[in-house]
Amino acid sequence: MKRVTTPVLSLITLTTDFGTRDVYVAAMKGVILGIAPEARLVDISHEVTPQDVMEAAFVLREAFPHFPSGAIHLVVVDPGVGTERLPIALSLNNHIFVGPDNGLFALLLEERPPDALVQLDRPEFWLTEAPSNTFHGRDLFAAVAGHLAAGRSLADVGSPIESIRRLHWAMPIADSEGIRGWVVHIDRFGNCITNVARRQFSDYAGRRVKGYVGNAILEGLYPTYGAVEKGDPLLLFGSSDRLEIAVNGGNAAELLSIQKGAQINVLFPNHMPSQSGTS
Amino acid sequence: MKRVTTPVLSLITLTTDFGTRDVYVAAMKGVILGIAPEARLVDISHEVTPQDVMEAAFVLREAFPHFPSGAIHLVVVDPGVGTERLPIALSLNNHIFVGPDNGLFALLLEERPPDALVQLDRPEFWLTEAPSNTFHGRDLFAAVAGHLAAGRSLADVGSPIESIRRLHWAMPIADSEGIRGWVVHIDRFGNCITNVARRQFSDYAGRRVKGYVGNAILEGLYPTYGAVEKGDPLLLFGSSDRLEIAVNGGNAAELLSIQKGAQINVLFPNHMPSQSGTS
Amino acid sequence: MKRVTTPVLSLITLTTDFGTRDVYVAAMKGVILGIAPEARLVDISHEVTPQDVMEAAFVLREAFPHFPSGAIHLVVVDPGVGTERLPIALSLNNHIFVGPDNGLFALLLEERPPDALVQLDRPEFWLTEAPSNTFHGRDLFAAVAGHLAAGRSLADVGSPIESIRRLHWAMPIADSEGIRGWVVHIDRFGNCITNVARRQFSDYAGRRVKGYVGNAILEGLYPTYGAVEKGDPLLLFGSSDRLEIAVNGGNAAELLSIQKGAQINVLFPNHMPSQSGTS
Repeated sequence: MKRVTTPVLSLITLTTDFGTRDVYVAAMKGVILGIAPEARLVDISHEVTPQDVMEAAFVLREAFPHFPSGAIHLVVVDPGVGTERLPIALSLNNHIFVGPDNGLFALLLEERPPDALVQLDRPEFWLTEAPSNTFHGRDLFAAVAGHLAAGRSLADVGSPIESIRRLHWAMPIADSEGIRGWVVHIDRFGNCITNVARRQFSDYAGRRVKGYVGNAILEGLYPTYGAVEKGDPLLLFGSSDRLEIAVNGGNAAELLSIQKGAQINVLFPNHMPSQSGTS
Repeated sequence: MKRVTTPVLSLITLTTDFGTRDVYVAAMKGVILGIAPEARLVDISHEVTPQDVMEAAFVLREAFPHFPSGAIHLVVVDPGVGTERLPIALSLNNHIFVGPDNGLFALLLEERPPDALVQLDRPEFWLTEAPSNTFHGRDLFAAVAGHLAAGRSLADVGSPIESIRRLHWAMPIADSEGIRGWVVHIDRFGNCITNVARRQFSDYAGRRVKGYVGNAILEGLYPTYGAVEKGDPLLLFGSSDRLEIAVNGGNAAELLSIQKGAQINVLFPNHMPSQSGTS
Repeated sequence: MKRVTTPVLSLITLTTDFGTRDVYVAAMKGVILGIAPEARLVDISHEVTPQDVMEAAFVLREAFPHFPSGAIHLVVVDPGVGTERLPIALSLNNHIFVGPDNGLFALLLEERPPDALVQLDRPEFWLTEAPSNTFHGRDLFAAVAGHLAAGRSLADVGSPIESIRRLHWAMPIADSEGIRGWVVHIDRFGNCITNVARRQFSDYAGRRVKGYVGNAILEGLYPTYGAVEKGDPLLLFGSSDRLEIAVNGGNAAELLSIQKGAQINVLFPNHMPSQSGTS
């Protein structure tokens, strides 16, 4: 029998604010592998800003769709650990998510409800029936993810609940003149990723594009970083189809003094561009 | 036949001071996978302070118990590489440890002797019979770990020895008034983890708790970070059941000016607490 | 049938300048595992200096030989993404390399030509037939690596081409007096690794060694860090058999003010050493 015809191995991704210097991530992995020895573990990021639930929600929304169906996504950014926030798990589009109900999963559910949603109230699937008050990532969430990877269902590990906590997530504002959005992430290259999606540009088709952000005015929309001279700034749609401010071969955040949370105003003047870029 | 009934795969954890920017960790993994292609590799930490054997010993003691029986723990913090310190391997409680005998394994053996202890003196299990003088992690330890993962025993890869090197590890001092301990680790969140264990508090049951550390006096012992107001400092037992100084939603090390090695004095006044915390 | 007799699992290494904070590496891994669920993934480094093709070429050359035959090395440092540089794959000595043709693979091919070399011009092996212009690592290279791991050949995924782009890589200069080389990498410990290879010293056998670098003059060549007093600098051959400047128990780059790119002049006076080191 060909090996590739065996069932897909269980795949668990991990997203935390634990960093990789301390033992916390390893402890979670050890717990998972004690329960599901064959589980495949893939780190998404452990460098979420400490206790920044919104950033983790953004990371998760960007990353999870690249993983195959059946993946289990363990997400632990948990400033309220040990308090009354619920531990939950949910399924959405054949992906499973496990973590605290503090807004981490709010972005995922903006467009559609979960296929299933449970609170994790079955201590027999935890590492210990008396979990520590400071590390549910290890004592509760990792253990549940391990049991899910080993074949348990959401209905096994918890009881249905109705809804999750929402986050207040600033949405872009659009009118006939243009779109106002925000920089929601700055990546390692200094690219500034906004919450303005490519599809929002369709209402302005054929019009010039002019972006006001930080100390810069950016004319035109380009297909790729290399479409402008080295060192020049540009607007383009990045790999997640969101509007991005970049500098070819440079660091846009530094060069244009843009910080996370900065506002971008995109105007669409009515006449066609004379020279720069394409939309 | 159900896949989960196959034998547990070999699991190797890695703990080093190599960082993840250079190729050293990858070289070790390549060597392991050349010998044991099915071995599961899990990073514990590669961000041990360079050449800090004590820190690595602490990391190892915290991390290893979370892994399942049979795990092999490869630990390479090796300032004396190429000198006379012995390469060793040992087993303890169904875990195997491989690395240089420079104190890395001293904390593990404080409470019980190893089940087996060998020096790695069989060059046929090394990557080369003439290992480099600067990288035994790759040329010797990774290769031996690979052979152990592929089914060799400690008795195959080395010859028995009697004892390992010890570290001088400051132990907490206790008297009828209280306990003096030290901050042994500061984690990514700024939580300050001491060497005072939860069980040492049992001698003072029912008494108030008052901790003096850095520029702070901390009253009471709390069950979780969220038990105090945001921004307030607290004492609690962390996820490894050691006394920890934290700030709810903040960085205790920064806010209280606490550094690794700082002293903490915990006093237990005789009368019951009037208002704060629980013990 | 014993499990270890199954065919070697597909192994993919990853080398990028993406860092581990953003979702880019995870997106690539998700794409690979969607195509080749059993592929083993090993990170070489994601901390290549952003857009530094030369550094990535150096990392790759150091790391790949430690991996077993059949390994697939996915390398994405791609400042020209979306422009006319070709996506390529090549095989060399039973290793396969996948990435952009921008010089990344130039060092590998200095001594021998590739066994096969193709441009990746078959969109049916990409994630999408219309890849983003900003992230070929995910949309093209990871997908191709996945298909190669799942059993496709280079001839399946691309069309033969004749040659790759070369880099200008400063080679050491030697005459009867000595060798002039350059520091090409500074590792986490501050060890300064030069491009002078051990074999180049054979022409000067039996002669003293004197190295001039940064603000230091280093006498003699030592077998290991611990061969000099703590805090003393030394010359030795490092784990990749290249000349290295180090400080026993310290950081040579900081202590001797050496930066990447610094020149080292090694002189070989004719008379034998009176006291220090060995050559």
